[in-house]
Amino acid sequence: MNEQAKKSALLMIPYGLQVLGAKDGDKMTLATVNWTTQASFKPPLVVVGVKGDSSAHAMVKNTKQFTMSFLGTGQKGQAFAFFKHVEPEGDKMGGFAYTTGPNTGAPIVSDAPAWVECKVVGFHEYGDHSVVVGEVIEGGLRDDVQKTVEANPKADIDALTLKEIGAKYGG
Amino acid sequence: MNEQAKKSALLMIPYGLQVLGAKDGDKMTLATVNWTTQASFKPPLVVVGVKGDSSAHAMVKNTKQFTMSFLGTGQKGQAFAFFKHVEPEGDKMGGFAYTTGPNTGAPIVSDAPAWVECKVVGFHEYGDHSVVVGEVIEGGLRDDVQKTVEANPKADIDALTLKEIGAKYGG
Repeated sequence: MNEQAKKSALLMIPYGLQVLGAKDGDKMTLATVNWTTQASFKPPLVVVGVKGDSSAHAMVKNTKQFTMSFLGTGQKGQAFAFFKHVEPEGDKMGGFAYTTGPNTGAPIVSDAPAWVECKVVGFHEYGDHSVVVGEVIEGGLRDDVQKTVEANPKADIDALTLKEIGAKYGG
Repeated sequence: MNEQAKKSALLMIPYGLQVLGAKDGDKMTLATVNWTTQASFKPPLVVVGVKGDSSAHAMVKNTKQFTMSFLGTGQKGQAFAFFKHVEPEGDKMGGFAYTTGPNTGAPIVSDAPAWVECKVVGFHEYGDHSVVVGEVIEGGLRDDVQKTVEANPKADIDALTLKEIGAKYGG
């Protein structure tokens, strides 16, 4: 295989940054991810590649549910905070406040502009990251974003991207 | 469920544009896709959401292989050419020249800056699009792009994005 071509090709896929939230019993964590895509309108499905040796992986595999907080432009600090393993410290994780999903109890980054809760419909361990397929069962917006989309339902919410933080993850 | 929040959240995922190539016996097609993400480094896996009622879907399901041509910035014409069903007409499809993958025989958009060939390791029909998991078995670059990355292996190849063509697909 032409490894350089494979790498250059795969790095052409643009990515945003999201934070996966998991809760298993009295354990909770948040983990930044970027290998995310929608995969169906009806039902609304998302696919996310979750690193096989991460604590989030074990928790999502066990509980079959997760949250996803969609980071907005400028939220580089949040992205980096959850690249490393975090656990709750008071009402924060990694230095940032979190709330919990109404259905899953899993953590949501409080200042993320948007979030969804998912139940896992497929968990496929093919490679060093697993292909986790989640059905979206609830969603929410930060108060100011909610007002923005009430005024204009087609308003764009600018996502934080790998490009913005000067990082690459792929290839 | 808060449908507006779900929609606004999912539309925060940025997408590039790729063209899926399929060959089944003497049939061949190219289909523009965007629900694409990498899902593993080792082995190199990609996931793509493929519309269940498309001819590409049937062909990939049957043959368990596909190509993916990664469109570059400015290639809006190619993206739109393969939004509709196409078949070979001489040495072109949808008005654009194609070559074929060395392992799969499936079509590749000749002027795409980069391409990969994949064998299907998972084909999951959960929703209106299927979650197709492909292992990358070969890759290639357009001649000028090959020269660029030989000079600088970390050179960015600017992808065509949904944002560039002014389209949304998700939510």
